[in-house]
Amino acid sequence: MRILVAGLGLIGGSAAKALKRAGYTADGYDRPEIVRRAVETGVVAAAAVDLSLYEVVFVALPPDAAIEWMKAASFRKDAIVADFCGVKCAPERAIYAQERNFRYVGCHPMAGREVSGLSNAIDTLFDGASMIMVDCAATDADAVQTLEKLYGAMGFAQCKHCTAEYHDQKIAYTSQLAHIVSNAYVKSPTANGFPGFTGGSFQDMTRIAGVDEEIWTRLYMLNREAVESELSCLIGHLQEYLHALRAGDEEGLKVLLRNGRVRKEELDRERKIL
Amino acid sequence: MRILVAGLGLIGGSAAKALKRAGYTADGYDRPEIVRRAVETGVVAAAAVDLSLYEVVFVALPPDAAIEWMKAASFRKDAIVADFCGVKCAPERAIYAQERNFRYVGCHPMAGREVSGLSNAIDTLFDGASMIMVDCAATDADAVQTLEKLYGAMGFAQCKHCTAEYHDQKIAYTSQLAHIVSNAYVKSPTANGFPGFTGGSFQDMTRIAGVDEEIWTRLYMLNREAVESELSCLIGHLQEYLHALRAGDEEGLKVLLRNGRVRKEELDRERKIL
Repeated sequence: MRILVAGLGLIGGSAAKALKRAGYTADGYDRPEIVRRAVETGVVAAAAVDLSLYEVVFVALPPDAAIEWMKAASFRKDAIVADFCGVKCAPERAIYAQERNFRYVGCHPMAGREVSGLSNAIDTLFDGASMIMVDCAATDADAVQTLEKLYGAMGFAQCKHCTAEYHDQKIAYTSQLAHIVSNAYVKSPTANGFPGFTGGSFQDMTRIAGVDEEIWTRLYMLNREAVESELSCLIGHLQEYLHALRAGDEEGLKVLLRNGRVRKEELDRERKIL
Repeated sequence: MRILVAGLGLIGGSAAKALKRAGYTADGYDRPEIVRRAVETGVVAAAAVDLSLYEVVFVALPPDAAIEWMKAASFRKDAIVADFCGVKCAPERAIYAQERNFRYVGCHPMAGREVSGLSNAIDTLFDGASMIMVDCAATDADAVQTLEKLYGAMGFAQCKHCTAEYHDQKIAYTSQLAHIVSNAYVKSPTANGFPGFTGGSFQDMTRIAGVDEEIWTRLYMLNREAVESELSCLIGHLQEYLHALRAGDEEGLKVLLRNGRVRKEELDRERKIL
Protein backbone atom coordinates (compact mmCIF):
# COMPACT_ATOMS: atom_id res chain seq x y z
CA MET A 1 0.00 0.00 0.00
CA ARG A 2 1.50 3.35 -1.01
CA ILE A 3 0.95 5.86 1.77
CA LEU A 4 1.65 9.59 1.85
CA VAL A 5 1.78 11.81 4.92
CA ALA A 6 1.32 15.47 4.04
CA GLY A 7 2.48 17.79 6.80
CA LEU A 8 5.35 16.46 8.92
CA GLY A 9 4.88 18.41 12.14
CA LEU A 10 4.17 16.80 15.50
CA ILE A 11 1.04 14.95 14.33
CA GLY A 12 2.10 14.06 10.79
CA GLY A 13 5.62 13.17 11.89
CA SER A 14 4.26 10.96 14.66
CA ALA A 15 1.84 9.33 12.19
CA ALA A 16 4.73 8.53 9.83
CA LYS A 17 6.77 7.12 12.71
CA ALA A 18 3.85 5.05 14.00
CA LEU A 19 3.28 3.67 10.49
CA LYS A 20 6.96 2.76 10.23
CA ARG A 21 6.82 1.04 13.61
CA ALA A 22 3.87 -0.99 12.31
CA GLY A 23 5.84 -2.08 9.25
CA TYR A 24 4.36 0.35 6.71
CA THR A 25 6.34 2.75 4.57
CA ALA A 26 5.16 6.28 3.92
CA ASP A 27 6.42 9.07 1.72
CA GLY A 28 6.30 12.65 2.93
CA TYR A 29 5.06 16.01 1.71
CA ASP A 30 6.00 19.31 3.37
CA ARG A 31 8.38 22.19 2.82
CA PRO A 32 11.57 20.85 1.13
CA GLU A 33 13.85 21.32 4.17
CA ILE A 34 11.42 19.47 6.42
CA VAL A 35 10.93 16.57 4.02
CA ARG A 36 14.71 16.33 3.62
CA ARG A 37 15.12 16.06 7.38
CA ALA A 38 12.33 13.48 7.57
CA VAL A 39 13.99 11.37 4.87
CA GLU A 40 17.42 11.68 6.46
CA THR A 41 16.09 10.56 9.85
CA GLY A 42 14.10 7.73 8.29
CA VAL A 43 10.70 9.10 9.30
CA VAL A 44 9.53 8.84 5.68
CA ALA A 45 11.01 6.88 2.77
CA ALA A 46 11.06 9.65 0.19
CA ALA A 47 9.71 13.03 -0.81
CA ALA A 48 6.43 12.86 -2.69
CA VAL A 49 6.88 13.82 -6.31
CA ASP A 50 3.69 12.55 -7.92
CA LEU A 51 0.60 12.72 -5.67
CA SER A 52 -1.31 10.38 -7.98
CA LEU A 53 0.80 7.43 -6.82
CA TYR A 54 -0.72 7.06 -3.37
CA GLU A 55 -3.61 4.87 -2.29
CA VAL A 56 -3.80 6.43 1.18
CA VAL A 57 -3.04 10.09 1.96
CA PHE A 58 -2.98 11.46 5.53
CA VAL A 59 -3.23 15.24 5.66
CA ALA A 60 -1.71 16.72 8.82
CA LEU A 61 -1.30 20.29 7.58
CA PRO A 62 -2.69 23.32 9.45
CA PRO A 63 -6.47 23.62 8.89
CA ASP A 64 -6.64 26.16 6.04
CA ALA A 65 -3.61 24.70 4.29
CA ALA A 66 -5.11 21.20 4.58
CA ILE A 67 -8.38 22.30 3.00
CA GLU A 68 -6.74 24.22 0.17
CA TRP A 69 -4.27 21.44 -0.54
CA MET A 70 -6.94 18.71 -0.67
CA LYS A 71 -9.06 20.86 -2.98
CA ALA A 72 -6.18 21.50 -5.39
CA ALA A 73 -4.22 18.23 -5.34
CA SER A 74 -4.43 15.62 -8.12
CA PHE A 75 -4.89 12.42 -6.18
CA ARG A 76 -5.05 8.94 -7.68
CA LYS A 77 -8.59 7.84 -8.60
CA ASP A 78 -10.30 6.38 -5.49
CA ALA A 79 -7.39 7.34 -3.24
CA ILE A 80 -8.35 7.42 0.43
CA VAL A 81 -7.69 10.94 1.71
CA ALA A 82 -7.99 11.48 5.48
CA ASP A 83 -7.33 14.87 7.02
CA PHE A 84 -6.46 15.33 10.71
CA CYS A 85 -7.84 18.84 11.17
CA GLY A 86 -9.11 19.73 14.65
CA VAL A 87 -12.43 20.91 13.18
CA LYS A 88 -14.44 18.75 10.84
CA CYS A 89 -17.37 20.72 9.36
CA ALA A 90 -15.16 23.18 7.50
CA PRO A 91 -13.05 20.59 5.59
CA GLU A 92 -16.07 18.38 4.94
CA ARG A 93 -18.05 21.24 3.39
CA ALA A 94 -15.08 22.39 1.33
CA ILE A 95 -14.29 18.92 -0.03
CA TYR A 96 -17.87 17.98 -0.91
CA ALA A 97 -18.57 21.39 -2.48
CA GLN A 98 -16.60 20.31 -5.55
CA GLU A 99 -16.18 17.29 -7.80
CA ARG A 100 -13.51 14.86 -6.62
CA ASN A 101 -12.08 11.53 -7.75
CA PHE A 102 -10.93 10.44 -4.27
CA ARG A 103 -12.58 9.03 -1.17
CA TYR A 104 -12.53 11.59 1.64
CA VAL A 105 -12.75 10.62 5.34
CA GLY A 106 -12.45 13.40 7.92
CA CYS A 107 -10.50 12.24 10.97
CA HIS A 108 -9.22 13.76 14.21
CA PRO A 109 -6.64 11.95 16.36
CA MET A 110 -7.26 12.61 20.08
CA ALA A 111 -3.61 12.99 20.97
CA GLY A 112 -1.08 15.75 21.21
CA ARG A 113 1.78 17.21 23.16
CA GLU A 114 2.59 20.70 24.44
CA VAL A 115 5.45 20.85 21.95
CA SER A 116 5.31 20.94 18.17
CA GLY A 117 7.28 20.12 15.05
CA LEU A 118 8.93 17.08 13.52
CA SER A 119 11.69 17.02 16.14
CA ASN A 120 9.08 16.28 18.82
CA ALA A 121 7.25 13.60 16.82
CA ILE A 122 7.21 10.17 18.52
CA ASP A 123 6.00 6.80 17.29
CA THR A 124 4.02 6.21 20.50
CA LEU A 125 1.92 9.41 20.35
CA PHE A 126 -1.28 7.58 19.41
CA ASP A 127 -0.87 4.52 21.63
CA GLY A 128 -4.12 3.99 23.48
CA ALA A 129 -5.70 7.12 22.01
CA SER A 130 -9.07 7.56 20.33
CA MET A 131 -9.38 8.39 16.62
CA ILE A 132 -12.54 10.22 15.66
CA MET A 133 -13.77 9.33 12.16
CA VAL A 134 -16.44 11.48 10.59
CA ASP A 135 -19.27 9.77 8.74
CA CYS A 136 -21.63 11.32 6.25
CA ALA A 137 -23.78 10.04 3.38
CA ALA A 138 -20.86 10.24 0.98
CA THR A 139 -18.43 8.30 3.19
CA ASP A 140 -17.05 5.14 1.57
CA ALA A 141 -17.32 2.11 3.86
CA ASP A 142 -14.27 0.34 2.40
CA ALA A 143 -12.16 3.45 2.91
CA VAL A 144 -13.26 3.59 6.54
CA GLN A 145 -12.35 -0.08 6.99
CA THR A 146 -8.89 0.39 5.48
CA LEU A 147 -8.24 3.40 7.69
CA GLU A 148 -9.46 1.62 10.82
CA LYS A 149 -6.95 -1.16 10.17
CA LEU A 150 -4.14 1.36 9.72
CA TYR A 151 -5.16 3.30 12.83
CA GLY A 152 -5.19 0.11 14.89
CA ALA A 153 -1.67 -0.65 13.63
CA MET A 154 -0.57 2.89 14.54
CA GLY A 155 -1.59 2.31 18.15
CA PHE A 156 -5.05 3.85 18.40
CA ALA A 157 -7.18 2.00 20.93
CA GLN A 158 -10.52 2.89 19.36
CA CYS A 159 -12.14 4.59 16.40
CA LYS A 160 -15.13 6.73 17.32
CA HIS A 161 -17.67 7.48 14.58
CA CYS A 162 -19.88 10.56 14.42
CA THR A 163 -20.99 13.37 12.14
CA ALA A 164 -18.85 16.45 11.56
CA GLU A 165 -21.41 18.57 13.44
CA TYR A 166 -21.33 16.28 16.47
CA HIS A 167 -17.51 16.28 16.44
CA ASP A 168 -17.28 20.04 16.28
CA GLN A 169 -19.74 20.49 19.14
CA LYS A 170 -17.94 18.01 21.42
CA ILE A 171 -14.46 19.30 20.58
CA ALA A 172 -15.50 22.91 21.17
CA TYR A 173 -16.08 21.81 24.75
CA THR A 174 -13.53 19.07 25.53
CA SER A 175 -10.57 20.69 23.79
CA GLN A 176 -11.11 24.18 22.37
CA LEU A 177 -12.71 25.64 25.50
CA ALA A 178 -10.09 23.97 27.71
CA HIS A 179 -7.32 25.68 25.74
CA ILE A 180 -8.96 29.10 26.15
CA VAL A 181 -9.42 28.57 29.90
CA SER A 182 -5.84 27.45 30.32
CA ASN A 183 -4.55 30.35 28.18
CA ALA A 184 -6.59 32.83 30.26
CA TYR A 185 -5.76 31.23 33.61
CA VAL A 186 -2.04 32.09 33.44
CA LYS A 187 -2.81 35.80 32.94
CA SER A 188 -3.39 36.57 36.64
CA PRO A 189 -0.58 38.73 38.10
CA THR A 190 -0.66 36.34 41.09
CA ALA A 191 0.87 33.57 38.98
CA ASN A 192 4.41 34.84 39.45
CA GLY A 193 6.14 33.05 42.28
CA PHE A 194 3.86 30.01 41.99
CA PRO A 195 6.62 27.37 42.40
CA GLY A 196 6.23 25.72 45.79
CA PHE A 197 2.62 26.90 46.04
CA THR A 198 0.95 24.12 44.12
CA GLY A 199 0.49 20.40 44.42
CA GLY A 200 -0.57 19.79 40.83
CA SER A 201 -3.90 21.57 40.34
CA PHE A 202 -2.23 24.63 38.88
CA GLN A 203 -0.04 22.58 36.54
CA ASP A 204 -3.03 20.60 35.26
CA MET A 205 -5.05 23.78 34.76
CA THR A 206 -2.28 25.49 32.77
CA ARG A 207 -0.54 22.62 30.96
CA ILE A 208 -2.10 23.51 27.61
CA ALA A 209 -1.93 27.31 27.98
CA GLY A 210 0.85 27.71 25.42
CA VAL A 211 -1.19 27.30 22.24
CA ASP A 212 0.23 28.13 18.81
CA GLU A 213 -1.88 31.24 18.25
CA GLU A 214 -1.74 30.99 14.44
CA ILE A 215 -3.26 27.51 14.27
CA TRP A 216 -5.63 27.90 17.21
CA THR A 217 -7.05 31.23 16.10
CA ARG A 218 -8.05 29.53 12.85
CA LEU A 219 -9.47 26.50 14.65
CA TYR A 220 -11.59 28.83 16.80
CA MET A 221 -12.76 30.86 13.80
CA LEU A 222 -13.70 27.67 11.96
CA ASN A 223 -15.87 26.52 14.90
CA ARG A 224 -16.87 29.90 16.23
CA GLU A 225 -20.49 29.37 17.20
CA ALA A 226 -19.89 26.20 19.20
CA VAL A 227 -16.88 27.64 21.06
CA GLU A 228 -18.73 30.90 21.74
CA SER A 229 -21.65 28.98 23.19
CA GLU A 230 -19.44 26.83 25.45
CA LEU A 231 -17.39 29.78 26.65
CA SER A 232 -20.53 31.76 27.37
CA CYS A 233 -21.95 28.79 29.32
CA LEU A 234 -18.77 28.49 31.42
CA ILE A 235 -18.60 32.22 32.16
CA GLY A 236 -22.23 32.09 33.26
CA HIS A 237 -21.45 29.27 35.69
CA LEU A 238 -18.34 31.03 37.04
CA GLN A 239 -20.38 34.16 37.65
CA GLU A 240 -22.67 32.17 39.94
CA TYR A 241 -19.73 31.34 42.22
CA LEU A 242 -18.56 34.95 42.07
CA HIS A 243 -21.99 36.24 43.10
CA ALA A 244 -22.19 33.78 45.98
CA LEU A 245 -18.73 34.83 47.20
CA ARG A 246 -19.52 38.54 46.87
CA ALA A 247 -22.79 38.14 48.75
CA GLY A 248 -21.16 35.98 51.41
CA ASP A 249 -23.84 33.42 50.50
CA GLU A 250 -22.27 30.36 52.10
CA GLU A 251 -25.28 28.08 51.54
CA GLY A 252 -25.51 29.14 47.89
CA LEU A 253 -21.80 28.50 47.33
CA LYS A 254 -22.14 25.06 48.89
CA VAL A 255 -25.01 24.19 46.53
CA LEU A 256 -22.92 25.30 43.53
CA LEU A 257 -19.98 23.16 44.63
CA ARG A 258 -22.22 20.20 45.41
CA ASN A 259 -23.86 20.40 41.95
CA GLY A 260 -20.42 20.36 40.32
CA ARG A 261 -19.28 17.43 42.46
CA VAL A 262 -22.41 15.42 41.64
CA ARG A 263 -22.01 16.24 37.94
CA LYS A 264 -18.36 15.11 38.04
CA GLU A 265 -19.41 11.80 39.59
CA GLU A 266 -22.00 11.36 36.82
CA LEU A 267 -19.31 11.94 34.16
CA ASP A 268 -16.91 9.57 35.91
CA ARG A 269 -19.58 6.88 35.64
CA GLU A 270 -19.89 7.58 31.89
CA ARG A 271 -16.15 7.11 31.54
CA LYS A 272 -16.39 3.71 33.20
CA ILE A 273 -19.32 2.57 31.06
CA LEU A 274 -18.10 3.72 27.64
CA MET B 1 9.78 12.40 70.32
CA ARG B 2 6.10 11.96 71.12
CA ILE B 3 4.01 12.91 68.09
CA LEU B 4 0.25 13.24 67.73
CA VAL B 5 -1.71 13.42 64.49
CA ALA B 6 -5.15 14.94 65.02
CA GLY B 7 -7.53 14.19 62.15
CA LEU B 8 -6.89 10.89 60.37
CA GLY B 9 -8.41 11.58 56.97
CA LEU B 10 -6.45 11.52 53.72
CA ILE B 11 -3.90 14.12 54.82
CA GLY B 12 -3.57 13.19 58.50
CA GLY B 13 -3.61 9.48 57.71
CA SER B 14 -0.93 9.95 55.07
CA ALA B 15 1.13 12.06 57.50
CA ALA B 16 0.96 9.29 60.13
CA LYS B 17 1.94 6.68 57.53
CA ALA B 18 4.82 8.83 56.22
CA LEU B 19 6.05 9.31 59.80
CA LYS B 20 5.89 5.57 60.37
CA ARG B 21 7.81 4.92 57.16
CA ALA B 22 10.50 7.33 58.44
CA GLY B 23 10.80 5.41 61.71
CA TYR B 24 8.70 7.71 63.91
CA THR B 25 5.72 6.66 65.97
CA ALA B 26 2.61 8.80 66.23
CA ASP B 27 -0.57 8.52 68.24
CA GLY B 28 -3.90 9.50 66.71
CA TYR B 29 -6.86 11.70 67.54
CA ASP B 30 -10.15 11.52 65.67
CA ARG B 31 -13.63 10.05 66.11
CA PRO B 32 -13.33 6.79 68.12
CA GLU B 33 -14.21 4.47 65.22
CA ILE B 34 -11.60 6.11 62.98
CA VAL B 35 -8.85 6.00 65.60
CA ARG B 36 -9.70 2.35 66.28
CA ARG B 37 -9.30 1.55 62.58
CA ALA B 38 -6.04 3.53 62.42
CA VAL B 39 -4.66 1.61 65.42
CA GLU B 40 -5.80 -1.76 64.03
CA THR B 41 -4.13 -1.08 60.68
CA GLY B 42 -0.96 0.20 62.35
CA VAL B 43 -1.28 3.76 61.00
CA VAL B 44 -0.95 5.13 64.54
CA ALA B 45 0.34 3.47 67.69
CA ALA B 46 -2.50 4.37 70.04
CA ALA B 47 -5.45 6.65 70.63
CA ALA B 48 -4.52 9.92 72.28
CA VAL B 49 -5.81 10.07 75.84
CA ASP B 50 -3.82 12.94 77.33
CA LEU B 51 -3.00 15.75 74.87
CA SER B 52 -0.36 17.17 77.22
CA LEU B 53 1.96 14.24 76.49
CA TYR B 54 2.97 15.30 73.00
CA GLU B 55 5.94 17.38 71.91
CA VAL B 56 4.72 17.66 68.33
CA VAL B 57 1.06 17.85 67.26
CA PHE B 58 -0.02 17.84 63.61
CA VAL B 59 -3.58 19.08 63.13
CA ALA B 60 -5.20 17.75 59.95
CA LEU B 61 -8.81 18.42 60.92
CA PRO B 62 -11.23 20.40 58.68
CA PRO B 63 -10.51 24.15 58.97
CA ASP B 64 -13.10 25.24 61.55
CA ALA B 65 -12.65 22.11 63.62
CA ALA B 66 -8.87 22.58 63.55
CA ILE B 67 -9.12 26.15 64.80
CA GLU B 68 -11.61 25.35 67.54
CA TRP B 69 -9.68 22.30 68.65
CA MET B 70 -6.33 24.14 68.85
CA LYS B 71 -7.97 26.96 70.82
CA ALA B 72 -9.53 24.58 73.35
CA ALA B 73 -6.92 21.82 73.73
CA SER B 74 -4.54 21.59 76.71
CA PHE B 75 -1.23 20.98 75.04
CA ARG B 76 2.06 20.35 76.81
CA LYS B 77 4.03 23.50 77.59
CA ASP B 78 6.11 24.50 74.51
CA ALA B 79 4.54 21.76 72.40
CA ILE B 80 4.98 22.37 68.67
CA VAL B 81 1.50 22.56 67.13
CA ALA B 82 1.33 22.66 63.33
CA ASP B 83 -2.01 22.79 61.54
CA PHE B 84 -2.43 21.74 57.88
CA CYS B 85 -5.41 23.99 57.01
CA GLY B 86 -5.68 25.12 53.41
CA VAL B 87 -5.99 28.75 54.53
CA LYS B 88 -3.53 30.32 56.92
CA CYS B 89 -4.70 33.79 58.00
CA ALA B 90 -7.80 32.49 59.79
CA PRO B 91 -6.02 29.96 62.04
CA GLU B 92 -3.10 32.32 62.70
CA ARG B 93 -5.43 35.12 63.83
CA ALA B 94 -7.48 32.77 65.99
CA ILE B 95 -4.46 31.21 67.71
CA TYR B 96 -2.64 34.46 68.41
CA ALA B 97 -5.81 36.18 69.63
CA GLN B 98 -5.54 34.28 72.91
CA GLU B 99 -2.91 33.26 75.43
CA ARG B 100 -1.22 29.95 74.67
CA ASN B 101 1.50 27.78 76.17
CA PHE B 102 2.46 26.09 72.89
CA ARG B 103 4.47 27.01 69.80
CA TYR B 104 2.20 27.38 66.80
CA VAL B 105 3.43 27.00 63.21
CA GLY B 106 0.86 27.23 60.43
CA CYS B 107 1.66 24.78 57.61
CA HIS B 108 0.06 23.66 54.36
CA PRO B 109 1.23 20.52 52.57
CA MET B 110 1.02 20.95 48.78
CA ALA B 111 -0.28 17.47 48.10
CA GLY B 112 -3.60 15.77 47.77
CA ARG B 113 -5.66 13.21 45.91
CA GLU B 114 -9.13 13.27 44.38
CA VAL B 115 -10.24 10.79 47.03
CA SER B 116 -10.55 11.29 50.76
CA GLY B 117 -10.52 9.45 54.06
CA LEU B 118 -8.16 7.21 55.99
CA SER B 119 -8.67 4.30 53.57
CA ASN B 120 -7.07 6.37 50.80
CA ALA B 121 -4.13 7.58 52.89
CA ILE B 122 -0.72 6.55 51.51
CA ASP B 123 2.76 6.92 52.94
CA THR B 124 4.09 8.38 49.66
CA LEU B 125 1.59 11.26 49.40
CA PHE B 126 4.16 13.93 50.28
CA ASP B 127 7.13 12.52 48.37
CA GLY B 128 8.67 15.33 46.35
CA ALA B 129 6.00 17.81 47.44
CA SER B 130 6.39 21.31 48.84
CA MET B 131 5.42 22.17 52.43
CA ILE B 132 4.46 25.76 53.02
CA MET B 133 5.42 27.03 56.49
CA VAL B 134 3.99 30.30 57.68
CA ASP B 135 6.27 32.74 59.46
CA CYS B 136 5.27 35.65 61.64
CA ALA B 137 6.90 37.62 64.45
CA ALA B 138 5.74 35.07 67.03
CA THR B 139 7.08 32.03 65.17
CA ASP B 140 9.62 30.00 67.15
CA ALA B 141 12.76 29.24 65.12
CA ASP B 142 13.54 25.97 66.94
CA ALA B 143 9.99 24.74 66.31
CA VAL B 144 10.42 25.49 62.60
CA GLN B 145 13.71 23.61 62.54
CA THR B 146 12.23 20.54 64.25
CA LEU B 147 9.31 20.53 61.82
CA GLU B 148 11.56 20.95 58.80
CA LYS B 149 13.50 17.86 59.86
CA LEU B 150 10.27 15.88 60.27
CA TYR B 151 8.89 17.10 56.94
CA GLY B 152 12.08 16.08 55.17
CA ALA B 153 11.79 12.62 56.73
CA MET B 154 8.15 12.43 55.59
CA GLY B 155 9.21 12.92 51.98
CA PHE B 156 8.71 16.64 51.37
CA ALA B 157 11.25 17.96 48.87
CA GLN B 158 11.21 21.54 50.13
CA CYS B 159 9.81 23.82 52.81
CA LYS B 160 8.64 27.17 51.50
CA HIS B 161 8.44 30.06 53.98
CA CYS B 162 6.07 33.01 53.70
CA THR B 163 3.52 35.03 55.63
CA ALA B 164 -0.05 33.87 56.10
CA GLU B 165 -1.26 36.72 53.87
CA TYR B 166 1.12 35.76 51.05
CA HIS B 167 0.07 32.12 51.37
CA ASP B 168 -3.63 32.90 51.20
CA GLN B 169 -3.19 35.12 48.16
CA LYS B 170 -1.13 32.52 46.24
CA ILE B 171 -3.37 29.61 47.20
CA ALA B 172 -6.52 31.52 46.21
CA TYR B 173 -5.07 31.44 42.72
CA THR B 174 -3.08 28.20 42.38
CA SER B 175 -5.55 25.97 44.16
CA GLN B 176 -8.85 27.54 45.22
CA LEU B 177 -9.60 29.18 41.86
CA ALA B 178 -8.56 26.02 40.01
CA HIS B 179 -11.09 23.99 41.98
CA ILE B 180 -13.90 26.44 41.15
CA VAL B 181 -13.01 26.40 37.45
CA SER B 182 -12.89 22.62 37.39
CA ASN B 183 -16.16 22.37 39.33
CA ALA B 184 -17.84 24.79 36.90
CA TYR B 185 -16.30 23.25 33.78
CA VAL B 186 -18.16 19.95 34.13
CA LYS B 187 -21.54 21.70 34.22
CA SER B 188 -21.87 22.13 30.44
CA PRO B 189 -24.61 19.88 29.00
CA THR B 190 -22.10 19.04 26.22
CA ALA B 191 -19.99 17.03 28.68
CA ASN B 192 -22.16 13.92 28.34
CA GLY B 193 -20.71 11.53 25.80
CA PHE B 194 -17.19 12.93 26.21
CA PRO B 195 -15.39 9.54 26.23
CA GLY B 196 -13.47 9.16 22.98
CA PHE B 197 -13.59 12.91 22.37
CA THR B 198 -10.60 13.94 24.42
CA GLY B 199 -6.88 13.36 24.44
CA GLY B 200 -6.26 14.56 27.98
CA SER B 201 -7.09 18.27 28.09
CA PHE B 202 -10.59 17.62 29.37
CA GLN B 203 -9.38 15.20 32.03
CA ASP B 204 -6.75 17.64 33.27
CA MET B 205 -9.27 20.47 33.35
CA THR B 206 -11.81 18.45 35.36
CA ARG B 207 -9.65 16.19 37.54
CA ILE B 208 -10.30 18.23 40.69
CA ALA B 209 -13.98 19.05 39.99
CA GLY B 210 -15.30 16.71 42.68
CA VAL B 211 -14.58 18.85 45.74
CA ASP B 212 -15.99 18.05 49.17
CA GLU B 213 -18.45 20.94 49.30
CA GLU B 214 -18.51 21.09 53.11
CA ILE B 215 -14.77 21.63 53.50
CA TRP B 216 -14.28 23.73 50.37
CA THR B 217 -17.16 26.09 51.08
CA ARG B 218 -15.49 26.89 54.40
CA LEU B 219 -12.05 27.28 52.77
CA TYR B 220 -13.57 29.74 50.31
CA MET B 221 -15.40 31.69 53.01
CA LEU B 222 -12.20 31.90 55.06
CA ASN B 223 -10.31 33.39 52.09
CA ARG B 224 -13.20 35.13 50.39
CA GLU B 225 -11.64 38.38 49.22
CA ALA B 226 -8.62 36.79 47.57
CA VAL B 227 -10.69 34.12 45.80
CA GLU B 228 -13.27 36.69 44.70
CA SER B 229 -10.52 38.85 43.25
CA GLU B 230 -8.90 35.95 41.34
CA LEU B 231 -12.22 34.67 40.02
CA SER B 232 -13.20 38.14 38.91
CA CYS B 233 -9.83 38.52 37.14
CA LEU B 234 -10.27 35.21 35.31
CA ILE B 235 -13.85 35.97 34.24
CA GLY B 236 -12.64 39.32 32.91
CA HIS B 237 -9.99 37.59 30.80
CA LEU B 238 -12.43 34.97 29.53
CA GLN B 239 -14.84 37.69 28.49
CA GLU B 240 -12.15 39.16 26.23
CA TYR B 241 -11.99 35.90 24.25
CA LEU B 242 -15.79 35.77 24.15
CA HIS B 243 -16.03 39.29 22.78
CA ALA B 244 -13.40 38.57 20.13
CA LEU B 245 -15.28 35.41 19.06
CA ARG B 246 -18.64 37.20 19.00
CA ALA B 247 -17.24 40.06 16.94
CA GLY B 248 -15.42 37.68 14.60
CA ASP B 249 -12.30 39.64 15.54
CA GLU B 250 -9.68 37.18 14.34
CA GLU B 251 -6.71 39.49 14.89
CA GLY B 252 -7.92 40.34 18.41
CA LEU B 253 -8.34 36.67 19.27
CA LYS B 254 -4.86 35.93 18.02
CA VAL B 255 -3.40 38.65 20.26
CA LEU B 256 -5.25 37.22 23.29
CA LEU B 257 -3.91 33.73 22.58
CA ARG B 258 -0.41 35.02 21.92
CA ASN B 259 -0.38 36.95 25.22
CA GLY B 260 -1.41 33.80 27.07
CA ARG B 261 1.24 31.73 25.30
CA VAL B 262 3.98 34.29 26.09
CA ARG B 263 2.82 34.45 29.71
CA LYS B 264 2.92 30.65 29.96
CA GLU B 265 6.49 30.61 28.66
CA GLU B 266 7.42 33.23 31.27
CA LEU B 267 5.94 31.06 34.04
CA ASP B 268 7.68 27.96 32.69
CA ARG B 269 10.98 29.82 33.01
CA GLU B 270 10.13 30.65 36.65
CA ARG B 271 9.53 26.98 37.29
CA LYS B 272 12.96 26.15 35.95
CA ILE B 273 14.72 28.84 37.99
CA LEU B 274 13.03 28.29 41.34
